[in-house]
Amino acid sequence: MVKIDTANETAVSRMMEARPILTGVATARDVIPGMRDNLLLHAGPPIEWARMSGPLRGAVIGALIFEGLAQDEASAVAMVEAGEVDFAPCHHHQSVGPMAGVTSASMKVYVVENITHGNKAYSNLNEGYGKVLRYGAYSDEVINKLRWMNETMGPIVAEALAQSEDSLDVRALLSESLHMGDEGHNRNKAGSIIFTVRLAPLIAGVVDDKDVEAEVLKFLGDNALSVLNPVMAACKAMADAAHGVEGSTLVTTMARNGTDFGVRVSGLGERWFTAPAEVPDGLYFPGFSSEDANADIGDSTITETAGIGAFAMAAAPAIVTFISGTPQDALNATLEMYEITAAEHTHFTIPVLDFRGTPTGIDIRKVVELGIAPRVNTGIAHKEAGVGQVGAGLVRPPMAIFEEALVAFAEKYGLV
Amino acid sequence: MVKIDTANETAVSRMMEARPILTGVATARDVIPGMRDNLLLHAGPPIEWARMSGPLRGAVIGALIFEGLAQDEASAVAMVEAGEVDFAPCHHHQSVGPMAGVTSASMKVYVVENITHGNKAYSNLNEGYGKVLRYGAYSDEVINKLRWMNETMGPIVAEALAQSEDSLDVRALLSESLHMGDEGHNRNKAGSIIFTVRLAPLIAGVVDDKDVEAEVLKFLGDNALSVLNPVMAACKAMADAAHGVEGSTLVTTMARNGTDFGVRVSGLGERWFTAPAEVPDGLYFPGFSSEDANADIGDSTITETAGIGAFAMAAAPAIVTFISGTPQDALNATLEMYEITAAEHTHFTIPVLDFRGTPTGIDIRKVVELGIAPRVNTGIAHKEAGVGQVGAGLVRPPMAIFEEALVAFAEKYGLV
Repeated sequence: MVKIDTANETAVSRMMEARPILTGVATARDVIPGMRDNLLLHAGPPIEWARMSGPLRGAVIGALIFEGLAQDEASAVAMVEAGEVDFAPCHHHQSVGPMAGVTSASMKVYVVENITHGNKAYSNLNEGYGKVLRYGAYSDEVINKLRWMNETMGPIVAEALAQSEDSLDVRALLSESLHMGDEGHNRNKAGSIIFTVRLAPLIAGVVDDKDVEAEVLKFLGDNALSVLNPVMAACKAMADAAHGVEGSTLVTTMARNGTDFGVRVSGLGERWFTAPAEVPDGLYFPGFSSEDANADIGDSTITETAGIGAFAMAAAPAIVTFISGTPQDALNATLEMYEITAAEHTHFTIPVLDFRGTPTGIDIRKVVELGIAPRVNTGIAHKEAGVGQVGAGLVRPPMAIFEEALVAFAEKYGLV
Repeated sequence: MVKIDTANETAVSRMMEARPILTGVATARDVIPGMRDNLLLHAGPPIEWARMSGPLRGAVIGALIFEGLAQDEASAVAMVEAGEVDFAPCHHHQSVGPMAGVTSASMKVYVVENITHGNKAYSNLNEGYGKVLRYGAYSDEVINKLRWMNETMGPIVAEALAQSEDSLDVRALLSESLHMGDEGHNRNKAGSIIFTVRLAPLIAGVVDDKDVEAEVLKFLGDNALSVLNPVMAACKAMADAAHGVEGSTLVTTMARNGTDFGVRVSGLGERWFTAPAEVPDGLYFPGFSSEDANADIGDSTITETAGIGAFAMAAAPAIVTFISGTPQDALNATLEMYEITAAEHTHFTIPVLDFRGTPTGIDIRKVVELGIAPRVNTGIAHKEAGVGQVGAGLVRPPMAIFEEALVAFAEKYGLV
């Protein structure tokens, strides 16, 4: 009989020992395994065009326009309907993307390497606020910003990182930012300015044009989500290190495509367990309500999978002004997650809990037994393409996917 | 009979309504009222050479060498003993300086203006760690760093600030950094990187030499105390706004010169109440103990005077790794300070206390009645000149100065 606890200990130790380093910025087609010109990666579990929600469709249209494969919405939709575009989850290509997560071959991506185990992970660049592709917007403004990021900012950050003598240790950055009021998912204020401050002298050394340099530094420094994408890639690298441990019931992927919420389990190979994603509870921007909200979307739940995000909410009491609730709720969120996890993180600690490690390694046995689904902090997208973010809040995956995964586990390992 | 409560309400409201803006960097002799070439400003209440402690003497020697008035220790001491050097508290010249606080005529200083009431305050530039003048070191290394700060970094920051369309609002910066694990006195990690990130695009726009620019950005970004000096000037501007309110028992200055701890009170004019400063309790760097410690030193207690620092410890639980204690102690420190203060700050809030305002406006009546002296977080200097910082910890002013001030208050206002 398989020793589940031992397997879980191996898996969670690998997750915590993984040391993800941001080594560079490169073009997706050059570095992401299997990337090709007519392939679009997206957040969450696999999904076909017909079932895609508004924001994901909008991001698909925008990416095809960005790539120059389509001229406008109509031609993009025609291409997709003619079967000329392939879709695959980011997660199938060692990648993650926030919200729609759409990543195309020409896009610049962060390259993160887990130097403990050697695996790599990738994530696109963060666009900041307002009309952005990740929320399904694809106006000229959106595409122009993406082009500037890809042609101006991306190469500069790439060159800056290439000059760096000591690479950027994302795990160390997170350890620090969790002591500065971040939880690493919806609140990345401290992490993003640590990121910018570390990059600034390197950027100063590689850019000739003062105005361009000022623009890049302002873009990175003013965007409190600048570091979210490297952080997500780092969490992916950590979670992947824990995947594939025979007999382990720990969750190594949680991801949503705007229609379905999907999880994968360390000891259950590449199989997804999915169910319809729910609409988050939260605070809406003026003029919007839950009527406008799309179902939960994005790969950013990789943060909770790796022991931060909603799991580290006790470290980030100020976040409640953004996602609702009270500081006590934030504390309770973390305390509850200890119930369903295998370990306390050895590198991510929470000062206010006497430097206790964050709850890490979701055990599907505990989730099902206690009826406590993992907590997730999230942005909320408008359900129609092109509108953008309408709020931020809290959500949990549907319990059914953990039950289904547990049944599959029992079947695979002859426990039934 | 004087209405003390009404007077205190006026004073503390003025303190909280004060909006200190960092408007520039300038040379001390050009901006500090009364500054002249043979005058050295120092931290704390007035003191003559004979009673100065090691670190203050060291900083005096260093400043005379920096100014080119002396060649070495011997000639500096000879000048002082010949009566050629005048001394005055920073506080007598609208200024504040951390630790020894020695400020000379050629030094660059931050200029902070309280745009609510129009008063200004000044503070020197922060030198970072290691051998530094503020801890009484004066080797060539120290003097050379001061020269680089004065001749290279200072003018660049000055030019950058001059280009800024929206000036740097230090009160807003503090509101933000208190939500990011800072208390604004011993922990200024978040504030210093916010400061650097705000300056970076401005600096990019004014510097031609890439290496110089990278060096300045690295110096500011790597120094977790970069923002301490502008913060202290901001607190001085806020405290000064509350000074001189007839009938007020609120403390508007707390400062130490390494020998004496002194306070001034809003309704008691320019008179200092002093007593011997104590040695802080805290954590010592490897190789040092309380045997090595100088008595409490520095103007940085202006932060506690303005409602942050030890008064905001609950916002900064991670600080206990540096100054000793537990996160619960940090929470209790803030809770205790509510007992002796007049108000809860309208701009500085603590997420973990349900966004309660920090305890602000120390009332000498409450201090004496309850026997609770204000808490202070502080760095600890070696008692000999030239050694530097040996630790960090906690201290309180001697209770006698509050008793003496209360007696003086009763006498002045005919309450006895």
